[in-house]
Amino acid sequence: MNERIQARTLKGFRDFLPAAMIPREKLIETARQVYRSFGFSPIDTPALEHLEILIGKGSDETDRQLYRFEDHGGRPVGMRFDLTVPLARFAAQHIQTLGIPFKRYQVGTVWRGENTQRGRYREFMQCDFDTIGSLSVAADIETGAVIHELLVALGFERFTIRLNNREVLNGLLEKLGLSDKATAVLRSLDKLAKIGPEKVAAEMQTTAGLSSEQANQLMELSSLQGQHDELLTSLQPLVAGSETGEAGLARLAEILSGLRAAGVPESRVQLDVSIARGLDYYTGAIYETFLDDLEGIGSVCSGGRYDNLAELYTKQQLPGIGASLGLDRLLAAMDELGMIESVGTPADVMITCFSMDGLERYLQIASQLRSAGLAVELYPEARKLGQQLKYADQRGYPLVIIAGPDELADNECQVKQMQSGDSCRVSLANEAQALVDELRRQLAD
Amino acid sequence: MNERIQARTLKGFRDFLPAAMIPREKLIETARQVYRSFGFSPIDTPALEHLEILIGKGSDETDRQLYRFEDHGGRPVGMRFDLTVPLARFAAQHIQTLGIPFKRYQVGTVWRGENTQRGRYREFMQCDFDTIGSLSVAADIETGAVIHELLVALGFERFTIRLNNREVLNGLLEKLGLSDKATAVLRSLDKLAKIGPEKVAAEMQTTAGLSSEQANQLMELSSLQGQHDELLTSLQPLVAGSETGEAGLARLAEILSGLRAAGVPESRVQLDVSIARGLDYYTGAIYETFLDDLEGIGSVCSGGRYDNLAELYTKQQLPGIGASLGLDRLLAAMDELGMIESVGTPADVMITCFSMDGLERYLQIASQLRSAGLAVELYPEARKLGQQLKYADQRGYPLVIIAGPDELADNECQVKQMQSGDSCRVSLANEAQALVDELRRQLAD
Repeated sequence: MNERIQARTLKGFRDFLPAAMIPREKLIETARQVYRSFGFSPIDTPALEHLEILIGKGSDETDRQLYRFEDHGGRPVGMRFDLTVPLARFAAQHIQTLGIPFKRYQVGTVWRGENTQRGRYREFMQCDFDTIGSLSVAADIETGAVIHELLVALGFERFTIRLNNREVLNGLLEKLGLSDKATAVLRSLDKLAKIGPEKVAAEMQTTAGLSSEQANQLMELSSLQGQHDELLTSLQPLVAGSETGEAGLARLAEILSGLRAAGVPESRVQLDVSIARGLDYYTGAIYETFLDDLEGIGSVCSGGRYDNLAELYTKQQLPGIGASLGLDRLLAAMDELGMIESVGTPADVMITCFSMDGLERYLQIASQLRSAGLAVELYPEARKLGQQLKYADQRGYPLVIIAGPDELADNECQVKQMQSGDSCRVSLANEAQALVDELRRQLAD
Repeated sequence: MNERIQARTLKGFRDFLPAAMIPREKLIETARQVYRSFGFSPIDTPALEHLEILIGKGSDETDRQLYRFEDHGGRPVGMRFDLTVPLARFAAQHIQTLGIPFKRYQVGTVWRGENTQRGRYREFMQCDFDTIGSLSVAADIETGAVIHELLVALGFERFTIRLNNREVLNGLLEKLGLSDKATAVLRSLDKLAKIGPEKVAAEMQTTAGLSSEQANQLMELSSLQGQHDELLTSLQPLVAGSETGEAGLARLAEILSGLRAAGVPESRVQLDVSIARGLDYYTGAIYETFLDDLEGIGSVCSGGRYDNLAELYTKQQLPGIGASLGLDRLLAAMDELGMIESVGTPADVMITCFSMDGLERYLQIASQLRSAGLAVELYPEARKLGQQLKYADQRGYPLVIIAGPDELADNECQVKQMQSGDSCRVSLANEAQALVDELRRQLAD
């Protein structure tokens, strides 16, 4: 072996070591459980699709970033860059079998040849849920309830779900006679959080050609804050006379009321009529979610209602609503907020290997503890005890079990606390029941 | 929208609809839990690797099947075709940080441009676990114990774990003076299950140039059956005098004894000195697992010990042992054996939407049931009840909740059994506690 190959990952791609992967798996499993608890079903789609399915279905940017090549049969193929385009293709293909409403979640890796200088990854995971084939406000409300439940299940307490209905904005634009300038206006409005109201108002006048009065009215709308009822009342005159706007406002009121019924505290929901997200895509309710203690990282869960998911692939009209959990962003936030306990093992306790003579006894104890629901690692070699304890410490084990010939002769073992160094002797009789109890007690501390 | 794109997947690639995905997710989660319970930690590696990392690391066949292309920076890249090569690269790169022994599991998608006429998929999932950096017999034993625990956790009762130690085979070949013909002999031996002992013996004579006596001795060895102790005794004279063979046999005895200590019933372990798997790779213990009721589908979990995992990437010697769960094969088997309940939803119960006037009450009930740990789908539209019940039936819901204005006026609802059509009225007072109890009772039936 003279010429070794340098072990390295591609730029923009990541290895996940256990300390990063353990909380990641936990987060994904929590999201799955929440999705399931609302009756969303899992699906999966291939990483590779016919190129024609993917191309032109996102933005010019996603087209540029697409990993594309020819497969062994000379077919042009591409790696999926999101889970929405595959969902659209999937729905067009299978919705007759599945029936509507169809509620699905999907957790999957996607790839984009991003510019890594912007700190972006070229491979990341998405974690989406959608309700397809229903126009009902119940689906709008449930989307917010899922987002709330997700954040709570992950251990967050201080967060705000921002809600809008694009129809309210459309109604106002209609009243201001700006419907034909909607895209430019919304593009400016989308920058509100980034550049502030004055620059947005200025931009609206220069690029979209608004009068300063029109720009001011839009800024006024965007700056509205307060209790939900109060806010709904202030919005009334701004959309009065526009059918779209009035219907949109009525729906917004229904969503707010429904969220309360579904157990979402009013204090965690904020009406924000300025959020527009995905200019050409969302058509009704829009959600964004911000962590109160880390607002700067941006929305950790966003989504909204769309009129027609799969128009590129089927004539069947498929309206829906869905949202996507920002996995990497949430993990970074949880890390920063000290919500992730850094461990290198998913197990509860390690059994040291005092001598290979005790191996069968150690195997038996490990099996007994596992039968009782504990996760147990057995150190496989009779190295010096200090070395084994160092290993346990590096992995983050709070407790280890030590059983030398003396202990085993008495059918006992020691339970050692790694942090304090304290240890106690426990009987191994009755399938190690006393040991199970002692470990449970100490792990709960 | 005049020109629609045909919604289709690439040949050899699959969509997973809920009915297929629900048991798949369950199986993967069970495997993860078992791996964790033995102290294996999760890791993940990228789908794409530098081409030089992947090429020449499998067989000529995997090289041919490799999906390869140039990325946006003109770098030659490839999609991983297994999880072993990425693990080797990962270990070379991170083992200094992680320390040994390093026990990891990885669940991930891999890609091979297979000939689909052989019924193979071009995208499939692997589910591997390995203990790296230890030569200890404890790791050999634990590998078998994990396999056993996995099968039991998945609900299998009738299965057989076949065990061999390559050293025993090597010892015999040494004694027969056939060490230099090992590869050809093992290649023939590997076909034993497929073509039978007579054809294997004949092939050994024609292709490897064995005498008929040599071939017969090998066949005799392969046909040995019986109790473990008896078998070990019969093997003794066949390897006596060969250091490798004697050590190998002693280790085999230790593994068998260790498996018993670890709670693996002797009846589920079968010594089979003919299994050789991965001719040039495995060097010690080898495992295969067969379902007694579906032996024909082949091994559902296989693996073994290797001397040096990452020699292509590092000078550090990294011996280890690991195995891989055959996900697709296991799911097919579970389906065939009637072990998979076919459902289209992961939820326990559906709340029908009798009228949109009741929506907030339905949302509240759903939220109360979820707080009690039940998974609940709320039908989002006030369609005809018959239509909603048909939807519930298609999804496989055993129970639905119906609450019209009369029931709600009494603060009650109906619980309807989908199969029998029976229903009963239950109070919704006290956060729907009586309903929670009734659903739990009926779901447990």
